[in-house]
Amino acid sequence: MLPAMYFQILNQFKKQLKQLDAWFDAAAAHAKDRGFDPNLLLAQRLAPDQFALVRQVQTACDTAKLSAARLSGKEAPSHPDTEQTLDELRARVQAVISYLDGFTAKDFEGAATRNVTQPRWEGKSMSGADYFVEHALPNFYFHLSHTYAILRHSGVRLGKRDYLGTLSLRAPG
Amino acid sequence: MLPAMYFQILNQFKKQLKQLDAWFDAAAAHAKDRGFDPNLLLAQRLAPDQFALVRQVQTACDTAKLSAARLSGKEAPSHPDTEQTLDELRARVQAVISYLDGFTAKDFEGAATRNVTQPRWEGKSMSGADYFVEHALPNFYFHLSHTYAILRHSGVRLGKRDYLGTLSLRAPG
Repeated sequence: MLPAMYFQILNQFKKQLKQLDAWFDAAAAHAKDRGFDPNLLLAQRLAPDQFALVRQVQTACDTAKLSAARLSGKEAPSHPDTEQTLDELRARVQAVISYLDGFTAKDFEGAATRNVTQPRWEGKSMSGADYFVEHALPNFYFHLSHTYAILRHSGVRLGKRDYLGTLSLRAPG
Repeated sequence: MLPAMYFQILNQFKKQLKQLDAWFDAAAAHAKDRGFDPNLLLAQRLAPDQFALVRQVQTACDTAKLSAARLSGKEAPSHPDTEQTLDELRARVQAVISYLDGFTAKDFEGAATRNVTQPRWEGKSMSGADYFVEHALPNFYFHLSHTYAILRHSGVRLGKRDYLGTLSLRAPG
């Protein structure tokens, strides 16, 4: 696997986090229109035993941040999960976007064969390639999509274009 | 981008579709336990202007099927979206799993630079690499995660392990 692929997908994660930030504009507008405190959205969830919106966003952020760090061998900044307002949550998203801005394709040379582990795996590990494809990618999009789903379920006006963002379409001919 | 990466991620799509099929076991068990017709789940949705479960599954299936076809230059089988029962929907998922079984890494040589288009793009196109990273990957996981979210919201007992499946963890040492 060439380093360019990791870099391209991590750039896509960054793009998706920017889209997510724009969803919060729609969320704030919806709250204002309906006359409720936008920060109440942070506690919304789809099932009592699923993460609330705030933790969906924190986990999407951490998955993007940690996959970039683990696949490049760099340190990840620490974020203590203390966000209590939409503005604080947006600052968290921006911090991760800024962190991802610091990477280049070269940082991911050798990523596929890196040894990746985390405390909950109790000493076990995955190759960088397996970790990225089996763990980071599905988890990032899981928590991103759940964030979107919670907002839609809460009445926020969003559509598929807000999810995908602008595509790199080429003109005919 | 090496062909192996497309192949690895499409294999992951296949794995996720197998997980999805197992969610339907849990969905059928939940319906039986609560004494309702499991086929009622197909019409569940999280917002009136979002796809119902049946269409989330059909779209996840199509995204996996069409990305494999478009990136390899092969024909995709046609599925007319006529499913009305959980069993018919499971057959659709199985058909796509079988289709994906027919691919090898070699089929995706040159995938990154293929010209990919679809009718709704009105003559515009994307490179295979951009299409896969900006369109196929986010869409596949969007519809997969929404399927999961609808089931969870409907009370079906599922957890993160049912979403991710078994990871390729290596023993310590």
